[in-house]
Amino acid sequence: METSTFPIVLVGAGNLATNLGLALKQAGFPILQVYSRSEGAASALAGRLGCEATVSLQDLRPDAELYITALKDSALESRLPEILHGREERFWVHTAGSLPLSLWERVPGVKRYGVFYPMQTFSKARRVDFRSIPILLEANALAQMNLLREIASTLSGNVREATSRQRQAIHMAGVFACNFTNHCYAMAEKLLAAQGLPFELLQPLIDETARKVHELAPQEAQTGPAIRYDENVIGKHLEALSHEPEMQTLYRLLSRSIHQAAREKLKGTE
Amino acid sequence: METSTFPIVLVGAGNLATNLGLALKQAGFPILQVYSRSEGAASALAGRLGCEATVSLQDLRPDAELYITALKDSALESRLPEILHGREERFWVHTAGSLPLSLWERVPGVKRYGVFYPMQTFSKARRVDFRSIPILLEANALAQMNLLREIASTLSGNVREATSRQRQAIHMAGVFACNFTNHCYAMAEKLLAAQGLPFELLQPLIDETARKVHELAPQEAQTGPAIRYDENVIGKHLEALSHEPEMQTLYRLLSRSIHQAAREKLKGTE
Repeated sequence: METSTFPIVLVGAGNLATNLGLALKQAGFPILQVYSRSEGAASALAGRLGCEATVSLQDLRPDAELYITALKDSALESRLPEILHGREERFWVHTAGSLPLSLWERVPGVKRYGVFYPMQTFSKARRVDFRSIPILLEANALAQMNLLREIASTLSGNVREATSRQRQAIHMAGVFACNFTNHCYAMAEKLLAAQGLPFELLQPLIDETARKVHELAPQEAQTGPAIRYDENVIGKHLEALSHEPEMQTLYRLLSRSIHQAAREKLKGTE
Repeated sequence: METSTFPIVLVGAGNLATNLGLALKQAGFPILQVYSRSEGAASALAGRLGCEATVSLQDLRPDAELYITALKDSALESRLPEILHGREERFWVHTAGSLPLSLWERVPGVKRYGVFYPMQTFSKARRVDFRSIPILLEANALAQMNLLREIASTLSGNVREATSRQRQAIHMAGVFACNFTNHCYAMAEKLLAAQGLPFELLQPLIDETARKVHELAPQEAQTGPAIRYDENVIGKHLEALSHEPEMQTLYRLLSRSIHQAAREKLKGTE
């Protein structure tokens, strides 16, 4: 598509807005304006995008082809009428994993709307490569879907439609595969730090664990003491975790859950 | 070192023995023999290594320079005297994360012993590249340590000494960073499968989550609803998990733990 004639406004300046805004700019889209409640965040992102910043929803420009919201779910929900006021005729998309497409129907007069959900973990401090990121789309009509598909395809080779229900499952799966995984890394780091050992020790293991599931299903890839609930090792680890009751509880529950899953798998192959 | 004149016997034919045996063979060490209680496992690995197989500890060859045990902890502990009988004068190492060096002292007459712990997740179905794997060494005397260091250096550029206590912390950290992480992947896969969605959707997220901690500490890398305990999103996810009580419990506890860690970090920077 001719990206240079398709101006965009970003409503939000957080981790997702930052990474998406930079990727859209790089793809040639004019970013007209960034809104954030926080003046610092709005200016910082506007500076990187070379566009206007505003902290006032009233001042949102009316002349963009597409408005992308990337706010906390509760903020988007509560301020929806204010965000759209006077711009109901424009094309609106949100970027939230667990908000339905039908959110937009709460505002009378909105006719063109959709969801543009890039499935990735975004931090302001780190640019991600959009080309392989799944972008999940939903729209209220074919014309809007086609347009979103064109836009998404300028960023990624992994664009697909997903219903609101599927997107919620994907979001939840992402919490497990990314946020909970990252917390496992954080707990591991804490255990090493207590013995004066650097986190880098774990990097080859972390990388191989991620690479392995390109080839083997996670169930097939599993190793370690929990599969057969090796009391010998698990008992020692639980004892060593006695001064970290929260980690001890998580260790016990996760080990039981791994053991249970392995037993169910065995039953399935009998 | 001159690997071709340093023959090795492997006591064990599981995931670790398989990958370590193949790596040692590739580095030029003659593998003389593989022992396993299971005839199938012993022959399979002996076949890949081009050496003898045995299912009898009595028939372990007496003429290797190094004996590497890679058995389940409880099997090694209970069969220790039988394994060493008549070979007490040889050089023995085990490969267990959570067994101390002093294990060897339980057998009278053993004088040269150590630990050779490659920190990685091993599956028979997948060859891993040893070059970046941390190999953690412990030995009863300098001569043995020097020898282990030479051997380990033929396989990996990441060789270091670790005490039994440090190794146990590293093993436990590995359970968090690998086994628990992999289980998070498995739970995510289950959530996607319930909506007819393929696991591949998660791969870019999984890869980025692992890559991210090369640059940012896990705490800095964290994203998602749990950091600020976003009731809105978390409530929806817990509701959607109501038919999976085990995953629901883990979701709740992991989210609380992430929130707690984020709060402690904030306090630390105030």
